[in-house]
Amino acid sequence: MQQPSLIVSGKWFLPGSTQAGLLLQHGLAITGDTITEIAPTATLLEKYPESRRLHTEHGLIMPGLINTHTHAPMCCFRGIADDLPLMTWLEEHIFPIEAQLTPEIVYQSALLSIAEMIKSGTTSFCDMYLFAKEVARAAAETGIRAWVGEVLYDFPSPCYGQLENGFAYIAELFQHYRNHPLISITTDPHSVYTCAPKLLSRLGQVAADTGSLYHTHLSENRQEVATCKERYGLTPVRHLDQLGLLGPNTLAAHCVMLDPDEIMLLAERGVKVSHCLESNMKLASGTAPIVELLAAGATVSLGTDGSASNNDVDLFGEMNCVAKVHKIAHLNPTVMNAETTLHAATMGGAAALSADDTIGTLAIGKKADCIVVDMDQPHLTPCYNIPSHLVYAVRGSDVLHSVINGQVVMQDRELTTIDETEILSRMTQLAKTIRAMH
Amino acid sequence: MQQPSLIVSGKWFLPGSTQAGLLLQHGLAITGDTITEIAPTATLLEKYPESRRLHTEHGLIMPGLINTHTHAPMCCFRGIADDLPLMTWLEEHIFPIEAQLTPEIVYQSALLSIAEMIKSGTTSFCDMYLFAKEVARAAAETGIRAWVGEVLYDFPSPCYGQLENGFAYIAELFQHYRNHPLISITTDPHSVYTCAPKLLSRLGQVAADTGSLYHTHLSENRQEVATCKERYGLTPVRHLDQLGLLGPNTLAAHCVMLDPDEIMLLAERGVKVSHCLESNMKLASGTAPIVELLAAGATVSLGTDGSASNNDVDLFGEMNCVAKVHKIAHLNPTVMNAETTLHAATMGGAAALSADDTIGTLAIGKKADCIVVDMDQPHLTPCYNIPSHLVYAVRGSDVLHSVINGQVVMQDRELTTIDETEILSRMTQLAKTIRAMH
Ligand SMILES: [Zn+2]
Ligand SMILES: [Zn+2]
Repeated sequence: MQQPSLIVSGKWFLPGSTQAGLLLQHGLAITGDTITEIAPTATLLEKYPESRRLHTEHGLIMPGLINTHTHAPMCCFRGIADDLPLMTWLEEHIFPIEAQLTPEIVYQSALLSIAEMIKSGTTSFCDMYLFAKEVARAAAETGIRAWVGEVLYDFPSPCYGQLENGFAYIAELFQHYRNHPLISITTDPHSVYTCAPKLLSRLGQVAADTGSLYHTHLSENRQEVATCKERYGLTPVRHLDQLGLLGPNTLAAHCVMLDPDEIMLLAERGVKVSHCLESNMKLASGTAPIVELLAAGATVSLGTDGSASNNDVDLFGEMNCVAKVHKIAHLNPTVMNAETTLHAATMGGAAALSADDTIGTLAIGKKADCIVVDMDQPHLTPCYNIPSHLVYAVRGSDVLHSVINGQVVMQDRELTTIDETEILSRMTQLAKTIRAMH
Repeated sequence: MQQPSLIVSGKWFLPGSTQAGLLLQHGLAITGDTITEIAPTATLLEKYPESRRLHTEHGLIMPGLINTHTHAPMCCFRGIADDLPLMTWLEEHIFPIEAQLTPEIVYQSALLSIAEMIKSGTTSFCDMYLFAKEVARAAAETGIRAWVGEVLYDFPSPCYGQLENGFAYIAELFQHYRNHPLISITTDPHSVYTCAPKLLSRLGQVAADTGSLYHTHLSENRQEVATCKERYGLTPVRHLDQLGLLGPNTLAAHCVMLDPDEIMLLAERGVKVSHCLESNMKLASGTAPIVELLAAGATVSLGTDGSASNNDVDLFGEMNCVAKVHKIAHLNPTVMNAETTLHAATMGGAAALSADDTIGTLAIGKKADCIVVDMDQPHLTPCYNIPSHLVYAVRGSDVLHSVINGQVVMQDRELTTIDETEILSRMTQLAKTIRAMH
C-alpha cells in the first residue's frame, strides 16, 4: 500500500465551517497534492508508520482561507497615506507612485504580501494588479495557490504602455501558466468607470475564449454609480448586464451600492461577489448588502483588497469585522453568524473562484490546502465552539502550520518557501525608493 | 549617581499618539516605578552601564494600552453562546450561568483574562464584575494596573446576596486596597435599568466619600432607553443627571444612544465615556457617536467589554474596528484617524480613569507602563507611519515585552508573573464545570 506523503493531525479537525462537522483527534492523509484519507489520528499513525507527520497536540486543522480580491503588491504602500478622502488618496498619493512602479518592486512586494498571507492562514488568493507576471512568478515560487490577472483600463499602463500591448501581455500570461498546478490566469478589466464598453466587451471575449474568471471592481461607491449613470444612463451592474458581462465567471469585487433588483440580478446571473469590508470601511464606501445577497442565493466570498486600504491581508481580522459590522447595519445580532462568516472565507471563496470541487473544505479527493491553528493560548481558552473562536477570537498570528497543494509552506510559523529575513530587509530598502516617489 | 533599575530601548520610540512625537533610537530609563529619563539609547547605555537592559533591535516602545471597560472573568464564557438576540443571550445563557459562579472560577478567569490583556499590550484595565475581591486579588498578584469594582444592582447578587451586604463588601474592598500602588477600587452601579434611583444615589455618595470613579453602563441600547423613559419619564442620561450623578468621576460605558443635547451634556459635565465598539457591534446595539462626543470636547476612551460579547480583550483589534466603523457611519474616511484612535486607547483611557497625570504617555515623572512591539514582520514592513501601523496593522500578538509600574511582566512573550501553562490547564478543567452549568 502506498504510504501517504504527509499526515496532518491534531486535537480538533474541522472539515468545513460548522461546529456540527467537528471531529476530535482526527487527521488527514495527503498523497502528493491530494487528501486521500480522513480518519482518527491513531488509525492513520498505525496504518502509515512511515509517512511524514505534522502533529499538533493543541492544534485545530481546518481548510486554508481564501482571499478573493487582493492587490498584493500594494503592501509596499501600507500606511504611506491614510484617513484621506478617496479621490485625494488615489490621485495625490497612490496613482502618482504607481506610475513609477517597477517589475522589481512589484515582485518583491508580492513576495512580502504572500509571506503575510501564509502567516495569517490564507492558502489561495485572487489578485489584480500591474506587472501581473511578477505577481504570478512570486506566487509560483512560493507555492501558494493563486488566481492572477493584469489589470486593464483605457489609459496607458505603467506596465504595458498602450492598451494593445496589454492584450499581448495577458496572452503571454495565459500561455505561460496554461497547465500550471497552482496558478490560474484571470481577465481583469479594472471597472466600468475606467474601461469603455468596448474594452469591457473585448475582455469578456478573452474570458470566454480562455475559460477564465472575469474579475472586476463593481459598484464600489456612490461616485462610481453616479459616473456610470451619467455616461451610460445605467448603474454599473445594469451597464455590465446590458453588455452581457454578468455571468457565473464574473467575480465582482465590492458590490457596495446595490438596489434590491440588482441584488436579485447578481444572484440570478450567478455572479460571484468578493466582499471587501475592511477596505470599504477604511475608504468610507459603505456596507455591501451581503446579508441580502446571501438571502437571494448569491455566492459571497471575502477579500481584503490592497494593503493600502485595509491595511493588512489577514482574513481572520476580516472575518471578525464582517461578522460584527452587518449586525449593527441590521441592528440584528443573529445575522452573519460565525458559521456563515467562516463559510464565506472558505467554501464561499472556493465557489467564487469556481474551485469548489477542489478546495474550500477538507474532503477526500480535494487538494490538500489546510492550516493548523494553535488553540493553546489565553485568548482561545476555554473552547466551547470552534467557528465562534475562529471568527471572533483567533488572530492570523495563531496559525502555526500551512499546507498548500500537499506542500508544507509554513511549519511552526517558519516559512519554508520564502526567505522572510531577506524579503523584510529588501522591502525596507525598497521603501526608501518608494518614499522618494511620494 | 543612582543607576536606573531598567533601560528600555529600541528602534522607534513613540511617547504619545502622534507621528510627530516619534523619536528614533531612543529609550527610557526607569527608576523603581517611575520614568526618570528619555534619551538616545547610546546615551543611556553609556551613562548607566549597570542598569538592566531591555533592548529590541526592531522594537517600537510606546505607552501601554488602557482598557476602560471590562468584565475580565467573562472570558470563561467566550463562545459559549453567540449570535443571539440580546435578551435571549442574557436571560437564557449568561445570567443562569453567572448565578452559579464561584469565587474560584472568577479568580482563575480573571488571571486568564489578565494574561490575555498583557499578551496583547494592555497595561491598565477598569473592571466591573461579581466577586470583585477575586478580580482585585488576581490583578494585584500579576502586577497589572487595575481599577476594580463590585457590580451592584437591586436584585440579590451571586456574590454578596442581599444588597445591604454589597455595601459591606465594597467597604472591605476600599479598605483593603486604600494604599495599593496598582489597584484602585471603583463604585459600580450596574445601570439605570437594574438600579433604582435610591441605589444609584447611595452609590453616588459612596463614590464621593471614597473619591472613587462612578463606573456604570449607560445608554447601551434602544431597550434601555425605552425602559428608562417608561419608568422615569427621562432618558438614561437625563435620569442620571437629574439625580446629580453625571460628573468628572462618572465613567459611562457604551453611550450608544445619545441625542445631540445629551452629547453636549456629557461633555459639559466632564463625564468620561468608555466606547465599547466591538461589543456594541456583536450585540447589535449600534454605533456610539464618539466623533460627535470628541467634537463636543468629551473624553473618549476604549473598552472591550466582556469576552462573551467581543470575544477578546485585544485593544489593537478594537482600535482597528473603531478607526474604520465610524468612517462608514459618517461616510467620511477622515474621521477617527489613526492618531485620534490611538489617543483614545492611551491618553483617552488615562483621562477616563482620572490618571492622565500618571499614565497614558511616556514622559519623565510618569509611571513606567510601556510595551514593546515587534515591528520586524511581514505585515508591518515597510513602515512609513507608526500610528497607522498601530491602528490598522499591528495585532495584539505583536507585543513582545510589557513593563507595568517598572516591573517587566512579559519578556519575549513569556509572562513573568503568571504561570500561563497552569492557568490554561486549570481553565480547560473549569470549562467542564461551566459547560455543565449551561
Ligand atoms: Zn480592489
Ligand atoms: Zn459591560
